Amino acid sequence: VIRYRAADVVAVLDSHYAGRPLESVLGCGKGIPVVATMAETRQFDPDALLVGIAPVGGQLPEPMRRHIREAICSGLAIISGLHTMLREDAEFAGLAGQHGVPLLDVRDPGPLQRIASRRARRCRVRRVLTVGTDCSVGKMVAALELRDAARRAGLDAAFAATGQTGIMIEGWGIAIDRVISDFAAGAAEWLVEQTAERDIVFIEGQGSITHPGYSGVTCSLIHGTCPDALVLCHCPDRTEHEHMDDCPALPIERQLAVYEMMANAVHPAKVVGLCVNTAGMDDAAAREAIDELAARANLPATDVLRYGCEPVLSAVLAHVGLSR
Amino acid sequence: VIRYRAADVVAVLDSHYAGRPLESVLGCGKGIPVVATMAETRQFDPDALLVGIAPVGGQLPEPMRRHIREAICSGLAIISGLHTMLREDAEFAGLAGQHGVPLLDVRDPGPLQRIASRRARRCRVRRVLTVGTDCSVGKMVAALELRDAARRAGLDAAFAATGQTGIMIEGWGIAIDRVISDFAAGAAEWLVEQTAERDIVFIEGQGSITHPGYSGVTCSLIHGTCPDALVLCHCPDRTEHEHMDDCPALPIERQLAVYEMMANAVHPAKVVGLCVNTAGMDDAAAREAIDELAARANLPATDVLRYGCEPVLSAVLAHVGLSR
Repeated sequence: VIRYRAADVVAVLDSHYAGRPLESVLGCGKGIPVVATMAETRQFDPDALLVGIAPVGGQLPEPMRRHIREAICSGLAIISGLHTMLREDAEFAGLAGQHGVPLLDVRDPGPLQRIASRRARRCRVRRVLTVGTDCSVGKMVAALELRDAARRAGLDAAFAATGQTGIMIEGWGIAIDRVISDFAAGAAEWLVEQTAERDIVFIEGQGSITHPGYSGVTCSLIHGTCPDALVLCHCPDRTEHEHMDDCPALPIERQLAVYEMMANAVHPAKVVGLCVNTAGMDDAAAREAIDELAARANLPATDVLRYGCEPVLSAVLAHVGLSR
Repeated sequence: VIRYRAADVVAVLDSHYAGRPLESVLGCGKGIPVVATMAETRQFDPDALLVGIAPVGGQLPEPMRRHIREAICSGLAIISGLHTMLREDAEFAGLAGQHGVPLLDVRDPGPLQRIASRRARRCRVRRVLTVGTDCSVGKMVAALELRDAARRAGLDAAFAATGQTGIMIEGWGIAIDRVISDFAAGAAEWLVEQTAERDIVFIEGQGSITHPGYSGVTCSLIHGTCPDALVLCHCPDRTEHEHMDDCPALPIERQLAVYEMMANAVHPAKVVGLCVNTAGMDDAAAREAIDELAARANLPATDVLRYGCEPVLSAVLAHVGLSR
């Protein structure tokens, strides 16, 4: 949100990093102040508090209740992407009613309940799904950057948000991991249908097809959206699945094979490029990691934030038959 | 339910088949009367109405509301496995309150919200998952029959129900397809943990790994339960996914490959046998279909209802290292 909606972010509330330049912590958000208390945020005249955490399991940590309570009482709307639905919390709902502020649970997928049946493949829009070797490797960022690059190349390109942060940034979408599992692929299919008349849609991926906790969500996205092309996102230093005990991540070669086999079971698709997340590496290490992965996978590779979207965008457009 | 809980079924309400011998329609349920109206059921003194349908999407058809209303007013409990939660239906909830009858929504998975992390593999119980080339090919029946056969062979064998009908038969379980997709694999993992001290558990599979609508549910089961062995269930006459337009089913060889690749991404597993559903074939055709599939897949095969569980049970026990 800080990277893509910076103009809407007046301050960050974080007692640990208070006073430090945000850019030195996050690599983006230059000029946005970091403060330690809700009281200090008032000088920036905020109209909403965004709960900016994504813990495993998506529950609201107890200590954070205080900040939300304080924000509601100050008249701020609350934007949350947690599985804990603030609207269903008696205390928050009561306070919000008193103070006339909305509680926006963006992870709530709404009432849509449909079963996917390969309808997405009948849409004329070219479908590109970003997939990952783990959670939190940059699938959303890759999809957003590729969408922006495709627009700069003159195409009518869309981004389909499938997670809470993507929805906060883009303003629409469905958090697929919150959908009842019978209807998860159907929700993904619906997202594609909303972009049916565009040239190309970059769909935000979720989880990983080999992740013991989230692979069902990933699978629903793959079979619901019927992608023509997949872009595989990877973090070179991730040998275990994040926040998981005893869950080794498979080597990229095996993940490529699993993704292609799964996608092709429903609609012909190919992994056409790699987006490598080299955050925290120096330039030489980043270049080396990208080159090594490109060679191992025999695919074009880049870090979209560091080096831009070429050559992955070129590979995508060539594969789906679109020209600039 | 008629096959496995016949002693609890006093009558079937079905205006289409009323008066016909149930066994000629279903192949089981000998002696259970089929009647056309709720009024006719009263002579059998029922204490519950079980809503015995499983439509795609799991919604309650409008015409069925009348029967449920009538049953509640006659003091019958209602047992439903639909996605439509009867407890959340204002009319049914009101009537049930007035008449003091319970509304049992067995598809409601309850409040469990956990993320799977390969904990199932640490359980000593041997885990066998029935998987399918499509929906409704006999995964539940295969798991129940294999469990019973394993018990007859002297093992402490359990059945883990993952769908509404399995839960109605066995009395416990979780309908995985109703679980929020982020928590579906975690619910599957929890089921295995409930059988952790048994010799072997046969886990009821759901959907198919190549089914565009339900593959996410299947995937969550595979990665949540960490099966040691898979038993693939197949209906030879199914070339398209049931109730799906333009969704061809993959040949069994490709499905075998996809299942093994997906399972092995998290825990070593092998498809060790085939359960072939030959309902509606004559004996010669059934034998031929089973032999042909066994040869194509190079695996032992049977129809568990027609020819019993051997040789598939033997293959399972040999693979997981259990003796009779």
